[in-house]
Amino acid sequence: MKPGLFITVEGIEGVGKSTNMEYVHEALLAAGIQVVLSREPGGTPLGEKIRALLLDHTNERITADTELLLMFAARAQHIAEVIRPALAQGKWVLCDRFTDATYAYQGGGRGIDMARIAALEQWVQGELRPDATLLLDAPVGVGLARAAGRAQQADRFEREQQAFFIKVRQAYLDMASQAPGRYCVIDAAQPLEQVKIQLGEVINRLIKAY
Amino acid sequence: MKPGLFITVEGIEGVGKSTNMEYVHEALLAAGIQVVLSREPGGTPLGEKIRALLLDHTNERITADTELLLMFAARAQHIAEVIRPALAQGKWVLCDRFTDATYAYQGGGRGIDMARIAALEQWVQGELRPDATLLLDAPVGVGLARAAGRAQQADRFEREQQAFFIKVRQAYLDMASQAPGRYCVIDAAQPLEQVKIQLGEVINRLIKAY
Repeated sequence: MKPGLFITVEGIEGVGKSTNMEYVHEALLAAGIQVVLSREPGGTPLGEKIRALLLDHTNERITADTELLLMFAARAQHIAEVIRPALAQGKWVLCDRFTDATYAYQGGGRGIDMARIAALEQWVQGELRPDATLLLDAPVGVGLARAAGRAQQADRFEREQQAFFIKVRQAYLDMASQAPGRYCVIDAAQPLEQVKIQLGEVINRLIKAY
Repeated sequence: MKPGLFITVEGIEGVGKSTNMEYVHEALLAAGIQVVLSREPGGTPLGEKIRALLLDHTNERITADTELLLMFAARAQHIAEVIRPALAQGKWVLCDRFTDATYAYQGGGRGIDMARIAALEQWVQGELRPDATLLLDAPVGVGLARAAGRAQQADRFEREQQAFFIKVRQAYLDMASQAPGRYCVIDAAQPLEQVKIQLGEVINRLIKAY
């Protein structure tokens, strides 16, 4: 059986990832494609526990290596239990974040050596890479303003976040320019209807090429 | 300051690891050495949570890669938070199991590719290796009989365990023969007093050479 396509959706906070994931999902279903929706970190019962460990663990500083290993531990389970079986059954997998988010957030945002991430990527994934990555891109100010809703002036913490997200966004844009065949960069600062039209075009192109 | 020594204690079930760890600990303290006692997997609050995840997670099959990554995630935190700081302060670290247990149990026992373990070892530990490893060795039958106390005839599960532990023990013995300078193999089938005498000699030798 022809394997399904592995599509990932990436982007910083506030770019409308959830809304647009739903739209892409519906467009694929409408085209008669079987789709498995998932997310990272998480995607399996064990992966969700690891996610909770990563997010909830506030009593000690998790080292960068530990964090990366936990991310990839959850990913290894996700790949074995969900992604590879679904693709092998001809289903498409639509995943809210994947390894590119590790490069963007841990690598770009936190400054972890990209080569360390690449070594784990190769170790855990072998040749598995997304077939297409939809990057919802918007200036950080636009994204954070949307995420915060009617926020007051940014405090010191929010300013730190902004600097962080600028690096994350830049890492995403760098990956997109290095892998133009896989990446589709969508201007998420446009009105939602316009974003949907562009996403629809990308999906149609993927379906035709499949 | 001169870094402390990193001593690990290894062995299969029933070889008297706990009792003999205590004895080694007391011998070091009696010689005026500051000792940090620890264990793997675990050794930190986060590491103990990962240990619980590894042991308690019964609802799904954890993949070999996920298990290995979780082991090394806990290890990375343990090294950064406990082992390296203690050694740098001139303290000795006495650890109940370390990476050799991963080679023995996951590699030897479960058949995971040793090269995969070696890659993670290098990735997580850099040049950190134990200065001395005390292998408490006994025939599997002796160990399991001690561990089980007055067990009845072995059932199918216990026989499976025996085959598993035979492979684990062999992996330990192989490592010992490949690293005779680091490994001290103690015959744990001897009476406890004899084991203690031999451990005492090893400890005295380590202290004199320090």
